[in-house]
Amino acid sequence: MEKIKIAIAGYGNLGKGVEMAISQNKDMELVALFTRRDPKTVKTATGIPVYHTDDAAAHKDDIDVLILCGGSATDLPKQGPEFAALFNTIDSFDTHAKIPEYYAAVDAAAKAAGHTSIISVGWDPGLFSLSRAYAEAVLPEGETYTFWGKGVSQGHSDAIRRIKGVKNAIQYTVPVESAINEVRSGSNPELSTRDKHLRECYVVAEEGADKAQIENEIKTMPNYFADYNTTVHFITEEEMARDHAAMPHGGFVIRSGKTGFDSQTPQIIEYALKLGSNPQFTSSVLVSYARAAYRLNKSGSIGAKSVLDVPPAMLSPKSGEELRKELL
Amino acid sequence: MEKIKIAIAGYGNLGKGVEMAISQNKDMELVALFTRRDPKTVKTATGIPVYHTDDAAAHKDDIDVLILCGGSATDLPKQGPEFAALFNTIDSFDTHAKIPEYYAAVDAAAKAAGHTSIISVGWDPGLFSLSRAYAEAVLPEGETYTFWGKGVSQGHSDAIRRIKGVKNAIQYTVPVESAINEVRSGSNPELSTRDKHLRECYVVAEEGADKAQIENEIKTMPNYFADYNTTVHFITEEEMARDHAAMPHGGFVIRSGKTGFDSQTPQIIEYALKLGSNPQFTSSVLVSYARAAYRLNKSGSIGAKSVLDVPPAMLSPKSGEELRKELL
Repeated sequence: MEKIKIAIAGYGNLGKGVEMAISQNKDMELVALFTRRDPKTVKTATGIPVYHTDDAAAHKDDIDVLILCGGSATDLPKQGPEFAALFNTIDSFDTHAKIPEYYAAVDAAAKAAGHTSIISVGWDPGLFSLSRAYAEAVLPEGETYTFWGKGVSQGHSDAIRRIKGVKNAIQYTVPVESAINEVRSGSNPELSTRDKHLRECYVVAEEGADKAQIENEIKTMPNYFADYNTTVHFITEEEMARDHAAMPHGGFVIRSGKTGFDSQTPQIIEYALKLGSNPQFTSSVLVSYARAAYRLNKSGSIGAKSVLDVPPAMLSPKSGEELRKELL
Repeated sequence: MEKIKIAIAGYGNLGKGVEMAISQNKDMELVALFTRRDPKTVKTATGIPVYHTDDAAAHKDDIDVLILCGGSATDLPKQGPEFAALFNTIDSFDTHAKIPEYYAAVDAAAKAAGHTSIISVGWDPGLFSLSRAYAEAVLPEGETYTFWGKGVSQGHSDAIRRIKGVKNAIQYTVPVESAINEVRSGSNPELSTRDKHLRECYVVAEEGADKAQIENEIKTMPNYFADYNTTVHFITEEEMARDHAAMPHGGFVIRSGKTGFDSQTPQIIEYALKLGSNPQFTSSVLVSYARAAYRLNKSGSIGAKSVLDVPPAMLSPKSGEELRKELL
């Protein structure tokens, strides 16, 4: 069998996760890593060839799908359209408010070049978006609730690290169990920001720093923490390294709807993730959609797509016959 | 806006549920019911015109999608291909072992007529199939577990009713909570039939019937009960009418996978349904896929499909722009 040739752009947690995920998918092979660093300084876990990002165009005919593993803040807005002109692409663009604009830019580049680009792939946006879309279509009358965690928020962790006297910090977003159970009961509660999530902070303070002052600065920080019940724990560097190196995450999408002429019959759809490693899971989603991008492009379906546009069968290495027999 | 014209074939619980679901979907209208009974004897809740099934062909140009609400045992194997020759169709064919054969028959009829037929729609097969397919594609290494209930099994209820001395009976399939929690822990247990589900039976005995004998016959019935932990409760006709008229159901699909080079990082995907009314929910799924069948046919995609072939966006009344903005 001819394998699907995959390349990675960027070798952070996500790029490394893609390398791992490819090893679990026998119909794919990893043929290149593109980096903005000096390629000679980057050693990959599986020894795949490393090239500089600026040389990507030279490899355009050797790669079926390029998986973009950069960040949404500065990398993807530029790389998304640029690489869509050269390759079929997958990315995990997750700045929700800017998705329409990003979609348009990638769509134009991909269509002009005859490529297929699936944007905003991962779990939110991604699998959670699918879950919301299916549940809302099936139960038009109702409410959808999304809870995140328990898991690390990079943005909130960074915000704490910028406080004077903080040496290192990590922040977990924690869904409020009682709120989830209220939603599961079908009562369709109105939940404020504070009702849905707690914020747990683990902070390594610099020697001699004013801990009370740090705690106060965290808890009163607008947007990030002021609207939440926040707890702050001061720990040592050793504890940080020992207890907080894993990157667990997860969450819940719950649609609480009602059916019947009187819209009185409760119907609950729940989708939940409990992830041992957020980047490894996200990468696994990216890789399954790389298979879909390859197939969509072969079938002549070009331009930008989201997970909402992709038939589920396209993600699977199995044939339509196998899927109908084994999974339907 | 031109509404999508929907018709129903069969006016049992499922057909009535479709009538209710259409009332929640403003882009659709119900234009006909086909029945094998004398149309004059069938009164619909919303007063839609009733025709005899034999006259369906006369209405072929007035209906965008026909939703087949018959049973899988005898109705659909015949009706599926017959109606696919006349209309775009949706059905809930759920005899898992015969799906490949049914698919082929419907596909041939639909393709010859230029129609689109989505088969085996509902929640299992249906939404549970989707959940299994997505989860397996994203986590290729792992195990998928499906639990059903708590809910009524028509087949098991009927089996009890056939026992001598039984006036009425209802059987609930109940998932074993401890087994679900073991799966959620990521331990990938091997679970026997008996480990996963209990069977709870509520029986109205005829006057003077031998209850001990009935209970024994139920508990030792091969295939249906012998392999399960089964409890039997004798109740009165009044209790049956009062406590067992609702048709709740539900279930869980859990994929417990591992990622990483060593396949050691646990990742759990769980999809759960808690349904106040099984037929009303199933009907709601059928109606959302009727929208997709209409659109697929308009776009030239003909033949038999399953839920695995349908892009999720096609189920929603919202445009691609709206979906990307609101749900992605």
